[in-house]
Amino acid sequence: MYQFVEGGVCAAKGFLASGVHCGIRKNQTKKDLALIYSQRRCAAAAIYTQNKVKGAPLEVTRAHLADGMAQAILCNSGNANTCNADGMDIANAMCAGAALALHIPEEDIVVASTGVIGQPLPLGPITAALPGLAAALSAEGNAAASEAILTTDLHQKQAAVQFELGGKPCTVGGIAKGSGMIHPNMATMLCFVTTDAAISPAMLQKACKSVADETFNMVSVDGDTSTNDMLAILANGMAENDPIQKEGADYYAFAQALYIVCRQLSRAIAADGEGATKLLECTVEGAPDKDLARRVAKSIICSNLVKTAMFGADANWGRVLCAIGYTAGEFDISRVSAAFSSSAGTVEVCQGGAGIPFSEELAKQVLSQPEIQIQVDLGQGAESATAWGCDLSYDYVKINGDYRT
Amino acid sequence: MYQFVEGGVCAAKGFLASGVHCGIRKNQTKKDLALIYSQRRCAAAAIYTQNKVKGAPLEVTRAHLADGMAQAILCNSGNANTCNADGMDIANAMCAGAALALHIPEEDIVVASTGVIGQPLPLGPITAALPGLAAALSAEGNAAASEAILTTDLHQKQAAVQFELGGKPCTVGGIAKGSGMIHPNMATMLCFVTTDAAISPAMLQKACKSVADETFNMVSVDGDTSTNDMLAILANGMAENDPIQKEGADYYAFAQALYIVCRQLSRAIAADGEGATKLLECTVEGAPDKDLARRVAKSIICSNLVKTAMFGADANWGRVLCAIGYTAGEFDISRVSAAFSSSAGTVEVCQGGAGIPFSEELAKQVLSQPEIQIQVDLGQGAESATAWGCDLSYDYVKINGDYRT
Repeated sequence: MYQFVEGGVCAAKGFLASGVHCGIRKNQTKKDLALIYSQRRCAAAAIYTQNKVKGAPLEVTRAHLADGMAQAILCNSGNANTCNADGMDIANAMCAGAALALHIPEEDIVVASTGVIGQPLPLGPITAALPGLAAALSAEGNAAASEAILTTDLHQKQAAVQFELGGKPCTVGGIAKGSGMIHPNMATMLCFVTTDAAISPAMLQKACKSVADETFNMVSVDGDTSTNDMLAILANGMAENDPIQKEGADYYAFAQALYIVCRQLSRAIAADGEGATKLLECTVEGAPDKDLARRVAKSIICSNLVKTAMFGADANWGRVLCAIGYTAGEFDISRVSAAFSSSAGTVEVCQGGAGIPFSEELAKQVLSQPEIQIQVDLGQGAESATAWGCDLSYDYVKINGDYRT
Repeated sequence: MYQFVEGGVCAAKGFLASGVHCGIRKNQTKKDLALIYSQRRCAAAAIYTQNKVKGAPLEVTRAHLADGMAQAILCNSGNANTCNADGMDIANAMCAGAALALHIPEEDIVVASTGVIGQPLPLGPITAALPGLAAALSAEGNAAASEAILTTDLHQKQAAVQFELGGKPCTVGGIAKGSGMIHPNMATMLCFVTTDAAISPAMLQKACKSVADETFNMVSVDGDTSTNDMLAILANGMAENDPIQKEGADYYAFAQALYIVCRQLSRAIAADGEGATKLLECTVEGAPDKDLARRVAKSIICSNLVKTAMFGADANWGRVLCAIGYTAGEFDISRVSAAFSSSAGTVEVCQGGAGIPFSEELAKQVLSQPEIQIQVDLGQGAESATAWGCDLSYDYVKINGDYRT
């Protein structure tokens, strides 16, 4: 039904991308300006950080998407353009420059920035680079664009799936950046998704929000909700399917494709968290309601003490219970069971809220793998949720002890 | 009015203490069992962790303090006696043993434990040590007791003040342990306070709660609320002041003494957080209400990104604004100003929600001191609050990557 394919944001029909080093970042080998362009005007949807400090680009994008339509995305890394007195002017000027280079209205441009907060973003390098960036747009440009949006990320993050809507092949693909200041709240880190499916702006926004709640909003690297989180989706309709205008089989098929792409990108963001050596996946089952399942799963993957124990491959399950215990909500801790699992096996550590004997040797093996599952059963309901995080290592401290210089 | 004095929990009249190594901890040079005893039966008050996972000793203590009276405190380190099937039996047996050694009812004993969660606490070493521990009680025993309650703490934490109530000299003194899993929620890490003031159990409980909200509940080392937090206060009345039975000048004088002791211990806990190299004190002024001031101050000192920047002496004030921005509540971010301050000077970094030019050289000097003030003015009210925390260092990761072994 759903088949992973290559190509990220260029996997869907009619989407081109490019990325260059324009000079915002000192390191000349690191690209810092990305452009994504659709050959047709698109239905567009986005969600934004809930932080009261919002990057200027988010405000400009929100205004541009008021009509639910867009055609291109411009994004720089190395500077967040946030808490700057001239932030709105700079973000607007970036759109004006891109509009000129692409021969489209500036209201059809989504703009985003990521990097240091509170340092003026120089417009010159961006304006100078835009004509070349537009000329370099190509269906093979995904790698350049996905590299250009990264900050301290070590790996590019992309995913795309093909599926069918009414017999027509459709594609959903995306790229993302994560790494630090990652704890999305009803929004997400930077993620750009493209699709050739035909779908109305309203249904696209609905799918965007519901999928983000199950994916990006269940990721935490360090508990800090960024000022610049944004998930933006462009749908250009070039798959020629019957346009999706309401909930129904086609909408659910599309939302499922979007979910698969966003889950893949969420896992990639967690695994590539600043300083991370391990991906943590926490599944909570047996919850009386969905919200509680989500809160418990996030409490666990956000706990610095759980994260450092996972870094040290130490089966200190008492810290998991402690994190469950300080989750807001009413529930009975004496019914909780917990286990650690990975490719090396499964070790049950707690039943009925109390410890049970287990092999420390096996636990060490299980927790020494690059991907760890923390499995919790609350034993008091049928709801479940999954959250993704990473361990807390020396390198997280090193990276963030001197980020600006 | 209020004079700092030596002696911790033995500073007030009629209080004796002792501490020994009984064998719960492997390291024979580290004391692990503490006893505090009053020559007279005391009014007693306590507050406990809000974590739904609660250590068995807390449940036993809560039952013993139902009548508002107690005479001794028994505390072990090295094992939290939490999430153990036999936890209540062990905690009750500890009290029974202490009652026998002290010739008092076991209902007059406060019991506490701190250390690893989920490992059975052996009763044998404690029972064997109790007669000697009781025999060693002395007015000079504060140092031994305050050492015996520590876990990964590097420094003993004690404070005492003398003041007068109706012309009678009174003393309030306390000891505490902190270090990791420190993020008290309407409760506190382990802290034991003694006083010779005469005060009713009800007024003592009232003072205990209101002072904890301004002190221990404003401390965070790592955002993890422990399962075993407890603040317990014994008041034996040996100062012979007119007993405090209601709010009034004497109550406020007593509460102020308690506040001074608890603030001192709170600062000591933050400064000695696991792996900490610096004490962070965040003051938020200009808030429309007290709760918001507290939440903003705690957001800032809890941010891993702020904490790592302080470790690196990096004036990355954007992270302070980011942490303010994700604090729950309605307020205007465009009125916020911020500064860093220490014994090396003050550097203003943000006004009206945007950055202002500052000397990076001065900022580096300011942030290289062992005690840093983060000063925030929200510019939209008259309320203020202070919170204490510490930086996040390599050593936090090292200590917690392999805590159990």
